[in-house]
Amino acid sequence: MNAPDEALAETDRAIRELGARGVQIFTNVSGRPLTAPEFLPLFDMMADYDRPIWLHPARGAEMTDYRTEAASAFEIWWTFGWPYETSAAMARLVFAGLFDRHPSLKIITHHMGGMVPYVEGRVGYGWDQLGSRSSDEDYTSVLTRLRNRPVDYFRLFYADTALFGAGPATECGLRFFGVEKILFASDAPFDPERGPLFIRETINVLDALPISEADRARIYWRNAVELLGL
Amino acid sequence: MNAPDEALAETDRAIRELGARGVQIFTNVSGRPLTAPEFLPLFDMMADYDRPIWLHPARGAEMTDYRTEAASAFEIWWTFGWPYETSAAMARLVFAGLFDRHPSLKIITHHMGGMVPYVEGRVGYGWDQLGSRSSDEDYTSVLTRLRNRPVDYFRLFYADTALFGAGPATECGLRFFGVEKILFASDAPFDPERGPLFIRETINVLDALPISEADRARIYWRNAVELLGL
Repeated sequence: MNAPDEALAETDRAIRELGARGVQIFTNVSGRPLTAPEFLPLFDMMADYDRPIWLHPARGAEMTDYRTEAASAFEIWWTFGWPYETSAAMARLVFAGLFDRHPSLKIITHHMGGMVPYVEGRVGYGWDQLGSRSSDEDYTSVLTRLRNRPVDYFRLFYADTALFGAGPATECGLRFFGVEKILFASDAPFDPERGPLFIRETINVLDALPISEADRARIYWRNAVELLGL
Repeated sequence: MNAPDEALAETDRAIRELGARGVQIFTNVSGRPLTAPEFLPLFDMMADYDRPIWLHPARGAEMTDYRTEAASAFEIWWTFGWPYETSAAMARLVFAGLFDRHPSLKIITHHMGGMVPYVEGRVGYGWDQLGSRSSDEDYTSVLTRLRNRPVDYFRLFYADTALFGAGPATECGLRFFGVEKILFASDAPFDPERGPLFIRETINVLDALPISEADRARIYWRNAVELLGL
């Protein structure tokens, strides 16, 4: 992605010649947001191919949590930073009008949409008032330029179930995005058992969800089959 | 708080002479974490008085979301930044061993614990592996110094219901903290109707929770009566 033209050419080759079903990118490119002009052709291409983009968080300790400190301590940059980073990237794509440009664009967010479903009220009523908290920037044109409420665009993202066995959060995410947008993922092997724990716990959570077996099958495999054109 | 000795004297006066039931502080003090040595006596005092501390997020656009940008855009610093800031402050208090020092310390987090309940899995299994993602810092002693798993301490915080009418998130938060730790709050008047909307929506959410009337009364008022010694 730091060579956008080459990334575009390789994406095209991977899909046309190698049968790739989508591409994964990170939430920023060397510290630049995905809405920088040089990255937009990739979103155009993936919309044209109707293939998904996996969005993986990228953030390190250099993104500090306190103005007086040089780095994020105790791996807060990972625990809270990755979901924050994912959410910020989603917001930037929304406010750039990406979904007005490509209403059927498919972007899969990691860890069940970052932190978006939990702060649904802030994304909703909060961002309906975008601009009311800023005196140095004029955001009045942003809302009028978008066709829908900001929160409506956030529901267009897909989300995976890699929440490390957190049942209530999985339900919260499911209710935000809807069952057709949820894809199974476990984040194996990054658990204390180096693999089996997150798979097992995630399956336990999904099997306990108060949904129909047809909807459960959507999450486990049917959504993926449709999304990836398998 | 930028004059810690005076803050301590005024807290003492407010409680002893004026009948204050607790104090509110912000999640950082001029960019310094609350675990800086000069702030710890306030936590000691509030633990001794057995009175709660309200923890309110403080964060502005200067905390940028991208390394290549000078400021956070589109008020992301508010929408996602405040819950992040709250969560980071909670983590710093936990890892400083504050709850080992004061097991009955009462800290009320805003907006239902920031983002903690949604990323319960990361706080749990993720922080059980603290240190595994860091090569420049040695965190091995942090976990052994704490008596419990990190996630267990996060459940000791109190949390308010100011989620702007987000029902699934409210359930998620309730299941993380437990009904005895949840306090009614609406964030009025910061809604599009300048007051009534968040009150109305929050009441609608609480009235629809699948809990007993006794538990609902806990959230609406009984927990507050007990916590504040009213």
